[in-house]
Amino acid sequence: MQRNNQLASLEQKLNYKFLNTSLLDNALTHRSHSGPNNERLEFLGDSILNFIVAEMLFSHFPLAPEGDLSRLRAALVRGETLAEIAREFALGDYLNLGEGELKSGGFRRASILADALEAVIGAIYLDAGMDACKACVRRWMQNRISDLSLATGEKDAKSQLQEWLQARKKPLPIYAVADTQGDLHDQLFTVSCSVSLINEITTATAPNRKSAEKEAAQLMLQKLEKTYG
Amino acid sequence: MQRNNQLASLEQKLNYKFLNTSLLDNALTHRSHSGPNNERLEFLGDSILNFIVAEMLFSHFPLAPEGDLSRLRAALVRGETLAEIAREFALGDYLNLGEGELKSGGFRRASILADALEAVIGAIYLDAGMDACKACVRRWMQNRISDLSLATGEKDAKSQLQEWLQARKKPLPIYAVADTQGDLHDQLFTVSCSVSLINEITTATAPNRKSAEKEAAQLMLQKLEKTYG
Repeated sequence: MQRNNQLASLEQKLNYKFLNTSLLDNALTHRSHSGPNNERLEFLGDSILNFIVAEMLFSHFPLAPEGDLSRLRAALVRGETLAEIAREFALGDYLNLGEGELKSGGFRRASILADALEAVIGAIYLDAGMDACKACVRRWMQNRISDLSLATGEKDAKSQLQEWLQARKKPLPIYAVADTQGDLHDQLFTVSCSVSLINEITTATAPNRKSAEKEAAQLMLQKLEKTYG
Repeated sequence: MQRNNQLASLEQKLNYKFLNTSLLDNALTHRSHSGPNNERLEFLGDSILNFIVAEMLFSHFPLAPEGDLSRLRAALVRGETLAEIAREFALGDYLNLGEGELKSGGFRRASILADALEAVIGAIYLDAGMDACKACVRRWMQNRISDLSLATGEKDAKSQLQEWLQARKKPLPIYAVADTQGDLHDQLFTVSCSVSLINEITTATAPNRKSAEKEAAQLMLQKLEKTYG
């Protein structure tokens, strides 16, 4: 009963409610503890995490070469990053550890925390499938990916879109203010972006025109990426 | 036009028809060729392949420890195995290669073939999502995974199920012949398998009782695995 309350409190932090709570308990069981441990779930979860982060990077950096994507992914899925995320949930407090690991503070060790986080991802996958995993991993990783964007001096989406079109000898994109709302000192701009290559526009709304243009360009890049690979 | 016919013939071999054929063309474009190359798709496809194979192994070997799963996966996704699969489709004949690579026979090189196969998986994912990828990868890998099962002396599913239950101090499974069909020398046996742990039975049909029991045990293992992780 005690354990069920514990798990429910972890589920709240994870923002995911398990249909089958024993999967979560299994994901939290280190091999030092008796009974089935989390290593198989970790194996599965590791591959899911790698895929989800790869896809996030692929669409977030539509022009980055493969080498950059690999480097960025390595930074996001390395043990220290995962342990950091695990600590945000105080995952260590919920682990099933053997006596020895308990005494030596295994619940604080980065590798144990990272492995358990991967196992939790595997458990969510078995519990509810890929979409549920994506929702969780995206929440955990979104800010880190945005930070990478700045830290690595990635060009803004408008420049990226321009270069993408120029590389294919296509006309430049056209931005237009489609709508403004609010008072003069508190306005919201809705901007559209269109390119000659496809018969669709993208729109975005932001407190200033430049930000709205950047967002619309980002959406257009994603659309082009989807169509042209 | 010529190229479109080529791609259509490859699609037949892949047993997958692209909605957006330019994704496939992109996946076949080596970096030695002008225009956008397949490296980003390869990055994405590699992570998808790893995940799908991990999941296949996870459910096909419900009792294998993580170390075995990792070892088996490494064997299945290594470049030489992927190049072998690529050669089954004569993928080399469809590559867009630069002059230099063409002359030096790049279309036969294992690494180029393996990378292109991963890129094709990435392209299928962008074209139609994960289920379409799974269907393809499973077709390509199924026999190889069954072979592994024998080569590695993996225990049969009945033994595995028995051990799984014993490890949890649960009663042994019960097998029963639910139906027989056909003449005495050409019979089909339908066998059910039930365990005390869950309120469900599994059934399988085969030309002899033992094979049907094994298959029913395998299905039960997968069910237990899904419930208990």
